Amino acid sequence: MAKRALVTLTTDFGLADPYVAAMKGAILSQCPLAELIDISHEIPPHQILSGAFVLAEAAPFFPPGTVHVVVVDPGVGTDRSVLVGLFAGQTYVFPDNGVITLIQERFTLEGLVVVRNLRLLSAGGASATFHGRDLFAPLVGYVLNGNPIRKLGPTPERYTLLKLPRPFGQGEDLLGRVLHVDRFGNLITNITRTHLQKRFSKLDALNVSCQGRPVSPLRTTYGQVEPGRPLALINSMDLLELAVNQGRFCDVFQAAIGAEVAVRQQQFIEGTDET
Amino acid sequence: MAKRALVTLTTDFGLADPYVAAMKGAILSQCPLAELIDISHEIPPHQILSGAFVLAEAAPFFPPGTVHVVVVDPGVGTDRSVLVGLFAGQTYVFPDNGVITLIQERFTLEGLVVVRNLRLLSAGGASATFHGRDLFAPLVGYVLNGNPIRKLGPTPERYTLLKLPRPFGQGEDLLGRVLHVDRFGNLITNITRTHLQKRFSKLDALNVSCQGRPVSPLRTTYGQVEPGRPLALINSMDLLELAVNQGRFCDVFQAAIGAEVAVRQQQFIEGTDET
Amino acid sequence: MAKRALVTLTTDFGLADPYVAAMKGAILSQCPLAELIDISHEIPPHQILSGAFVLAEAAPFFPPGTVHVVVVDPGVGTDRSVLVGLFAGQTYVFPDNGVITLIQERFTLEGLVVVRNLRLLSAGGASATFHGRDLFAPLVGYVLNGNPIRKLGPTPERYTLLKLPRPFGQGEDLLGRVLHVDRFGNLITNITRTHLQKRFSKLDALNVSCQGRPVSPLRTTYGQVEPGRPLALINSMDLLELAVNQGRFCDVFQAAIGAEVAVRQQQFIEGTDET
Repeated sequence: MAKRALVTLTTDFGLADPYVAAMKGAILSQCPLAELIDISHEIPPHQILSGAFVLAEAAPFFPPGTVHVVVVDPGVGTDRSVLVGLFAGQTYVFPDNGVITLIQERFTLEGLVVVRNLRLLSAGGASATFHGRDLFAPLVGYVLNGNPIRKLGPTPERYTLLKLPRPFGQGEDLLGRVLHVDRFGNLITNITRTHLQKRFSKLDALNVSCQGRPVSPLRTTYGQVEPGRPLALINSMDLLELAVNQGRFCDVFQAAIGAEVAVRQQQFIEGTDET
Repeated sequence: MAKRALVTLTTDFGLADPYVAAMKGAILSQCPLAELIDISHEIPPHQILSGAFVLAEAAPFFPPGTVHVVVVDPGVGTDRSVLVGLFAGQTYVFPDNGVITLIQERFTLEGLVVVRNLRLLSAGGASATFHGRDLFAPLVGYVLNGNPIRKLGPTPERYTLLKLPRPFGQGEDLLGRVLHVDRFGNLITNITRTHLQKRFSKLDALNVSCQGRPVSPLRTTYGQVEPGRPLALINSMDLLELAVNQGRFCDVFQAAIGAEVAVRQQQFIEGTDET
Repeated sequence: MAKRALVTLTTDFGLADPYVAAMKGAILSQCPLAELIDISHEIPPHQILSGAFVLAEAAPFFPPGTVHVVVVDPGVGTDRSVLVGLFAGQTYVFPDNGVITLIQERFTLEGLVVVRNLRLLSAGGASATFHGRDLFAPLVGYVLNGNPIRKLGPTPERYTLLKLPRPFGQGEDLLGRVLHVDRFGNLITNITRTHLQKRFSKLDALNVSCQGRPVSPLRTTYGQVEPGRPLALINSMDLLELAVNQGRFCDVFQAAIGAEVAVRQQQFIEGTDET
């Protein structure tokens, strides 16, 4: 099977401005055979955690050898570094601001350099405000064209990782927080299947609440409750998710990123099913 | 001319979440030479009719052999089936919820199976909530890689089609309904050129009204009326469309999906032109 | 390096309707090897200046030989012409409404025809309302397939260019206007680096104000001021831009397209720094 020069792009540039296309044109000018795939350009402006989340839930599904470039970069033009890292056989090009955090948590780091030798890149007079076009794109071209990453610079002693809230036990509850609200109004939390398995004996006898309001016992899919009813399930990312079947949980429960979610073992003496 | 593995995607996933890209990564992991083209990911959540409309007005323009995958799927994880159908030399992969209705109305069905033999797919532990990534993507890979569709399962005895409102005659009027409101605020109705030809002797002498308010005689293009003026025309889909030249009909007429549209022969004794 | 049939698309079609995909399908049906890249489909409906701006800031970064098709075309179906022009080794297919203005200002015109010989195109019964699919797409196919552009029609004696506001001096000030507001709320003006260099002796001693309210001295990048503080800089397009570091200038200053921006030499006797 022929190998392709697959590149994904994750930015907060939006789709109305010329920025994404200018960056794509610059990549294609460096590597005419690049195959460009958008992960998302709708990361909210400057929201590094959101970029980290979307990247980590999409990038790993691409074939080995894919190059992922991430430009959620409020520090553009300052002395923040640009890094090139290898995780699980894929290359990530990203600013040193923590946007790699969730990839780093889940995959083994196989190599990392901080970009210093700009003269290796066909990046003449890089602007101070649009490194996506003037620095990240030439870097992607450099990598796609098979040049050695180690020549770009040294391995840094440390790099930036976000300090994320962790679920913790309190009394009978495991308490977590909402990380992301998706297009369907579903709330995705920081509680993983593993967290639940470690804390509770039986996953099929848990009650979930959000901001003190009962949601449901743990379900498997949306259609297990009537349209309009809330439910909790472990989603395709192995994360606890709160949803309303064919509705918008975030509106019905008035909940957003950061909202507290609690899980506890069912009290069998009650035996009622909230849904 | 080299043949390409063209795939289009139509979903209600939006572009801000990782879902579309995860699905694309999964397709490329199955078929590294897939060429991915978006039809739309902005189908309103769970709106099967909207998905059916957008699919039918875009998919047929792609080359023969194109594979179209549609994930507007409020029943994900329930026992709704997944179908693979061949219409007019193109392959459609879609949930059995009626999203194929407008393709089925316009093209000859050349083959249809209900997907049962999941072991043929490299779809290990499919999640119950993200079949786009875990079931539809492997199916697309299976088809693109040239595997026989008939092995996926039997031909179903029946499959789901939407019951759409049909135009009907009432007194002097032909009455129809608005199916879709587009980005320009244009209203697209369920009245086809054929409906008009069957009902009226002359298409160049018709008056169109919306919710009882006169729009215009039938025109040919937007620029035939002054900017800001309303008009009706038979559009590029051969459907009756209501528009305001360089304006938004839906706002000016306070009309939305489902609004009633009436067409009647002009009374020549009046001879006035509404626009 | 293999040559590719690169095509970019710039439209006001949005991403929710079938229009963009129908046009892509039509291009691929004419030229199965076309490689389609979106510049933007979020040009505000009928806003020719916005289309001109986005096109000019993205298209030139693509490789030589790229074909750019632009469909921001409020005059569709009227007698406005369609043009094919060659600028700096790239081909532009566009309606004759001024959308080419900023490309024309910056690059040398190497050839131009007005499309007349429609029989050369596989464009049977073109609709009067969707030339993107029925005329521009076949034109792109014609060009991509290596057919001679000169056969499409004669070189026009004139073509449409937008009359854009130009910066001008008034007393101590150079006065310009806001051309574009981007996703980050940054305001991009019509004042170029060259305008500033011609008018002022030292670019590092300028004060910028917007609608009479001081912004900042000229900076180099966003991070030079604290988050939440306003600044002015010459951006990656060599245009004067007003921004708030990690905030939205357009909201903080209540300013939009057309707002007046003034630049003047600093009075050193004051010596204060507005930021």
